[in-house]
Parts: sequence; structure tokens; C-alpha cells
Amino acid sequence: MNFELDPRLQADTVFVTDWPLCRVLLMNDARYPWLVLVPRRPGLIEIADLPASDRAALMEDIVRAGECLRSLPGVVKLNVGALGNVVRQLHVHVVGRRAGDPAGAGPVWGHGPAVPYDPAGREHLLGLVRAR
Amino acid sequence: MNFELDPRLQADTVFVTDWPLCRVLLMNDARYPWLVLVPRRPGLIEIADLPASDRAALMEDIVRAGECLRSLPGVVKLNVGALGNVVRQLHVHVVGRRAGDPAGAGPVWGHGPAVPYDPAGREHLLGLVRAR
Repeated sequence: MNFELDPRLQADTVFVTDWPLCRVLLMNDARYPWLVLVPRRPGLIEIADLPASDRAALMEDIVRAGECLRSLPGVVKLNVGALGNVVRQLHVHVVGRRAGDPAGAGPVWGHGPAVPYDPAGREHLLGLVRAR
Repeated sequence: MNFELDPRLQADTVFVTDWPLCRVLLMNDARYPWLVLVPRRPGLIEIADLPASDRAALMEDIVRAGECLRSLPGVVKLNVGALGNVVRQLHVHVVGRRAGDPAGAGPVWGHGPAVPYDPAGREHLLGLVRAR
């Protein structure tokens, strides 16, 4: 069985790059700089479905994604989450939060409809993440 | 500088136990079986503030907390999150989700006021986690 990206994740995101473990996606929502990491293994739902060595690699990918986002202007906090309430395929959100962004003190998930990027903004972020 | 638990985390939770890296807390909210892991190191805000070896240990504590919760009746999915929008001290939520629970397909954070446990329900959960 090969890795296949869930079609809902594909529809909501833009492909950034593949790291050794994870596919890196950019959420197409200009309200928040937001990466989604998807371990490229078939059949995963919970973190515990990964072997321990891959779990450690996933943690390092989370840190790397966070470093990309923290280098952006105004990002003061990261939000990291693996929820899977809607899309069961294991995926980890790493979101850069800015003071005054729409979700405020709350979580970004389920907080209103996404605002798609304009092409220039999207290319800027893609370039930044790919450069790491 | 010694580890001190943020007073807001302390107010919202019940002490469960200390694992080698993390303090384990039970969120005092009977709507969801919900553990909070707090690495017992001073001055942490982001996961990246931990050295890599502690990050791997944190991942294993997340998996262990999840195993406790998945052993409870009706738990069909885990939600894992490190947000820190309100309380900056690094802490990781591990939440057992049940079909039909109040947050539905959304996240538990920011979803209405907590419903405190009655003593019997709280002791049952505490016993279960401490037994692992």
C-alpha cells in the first residue's frame, strides 16, 4: 500500500516540499502562516501508529516547520495540533500566530472560512519554506 | 531557576503524577477525558525550547497519555495540541474524543465552559492513569 494524500487535505493546501518523513503543505489561508505535515506512510491515524523512530523524526519536522514560521514578521507564538476530527489521515498542523489575528486567544481550527492567498503572497511563503 | 507550574494550569486541573519528563495533569472537565503534559523544566514556551532528547521524550509521553485515554470506553480519536495562546508555559493537551461529545468535529479548546468532575468520576480517571 502506497502513501496517498487525503483529497480534502489536498484541496485545502498547496504542496511545498517533501522532507524525509513528511510531506509539507501550506494551508491556503492567508489569515495565518500555516503548514501541515503529513508523514508519508500509508494507513496512519494516530501518532502512535508510527514507530518510535518516526515519531522522533516527526517531532523534529514539527520543530523545523515552526522555525520557518517564526522567521516571518509578527509571528509571536506557534500552535501545534494533531486533531483528525474531520480528516482521519494523520497530519500535524503548525501555525504561526500573530497578535491581533482573527482567532485571537482561541484555536485556528474551525474559526471561519479560509481566505485564499493571492499568488504573490503564496509564492513568498513557499520560497521561504523551501529555502530551509 | 526551578520548575513552577503556571497558576492557571494549576487552577484548571488535578495533579495526576510525574513522569520522568512531564508533570501529568487531568483537566477538570468531565466533558472530555483530557490530560495535560507539562515538561518540568523552567522557562519553556515552544517545543523547540527543549533539547532534542527531551523533545523525543515528550513525544513518547504524548503517546503514553494517548494510550491511557484510548483505553476508556467510547474514545475513538485523540486530539493533541500545544497552543499556548493563553498560558505561555509549554504544555501539551492530549484529549480523548467520543462520538457525540460537545465539541463535535471541532476542537475542544475554547468550546464553552468546563464541567467539573464529580469526585467518583475524577478518582476513576486518576486511578487509571496512575496505574500506567
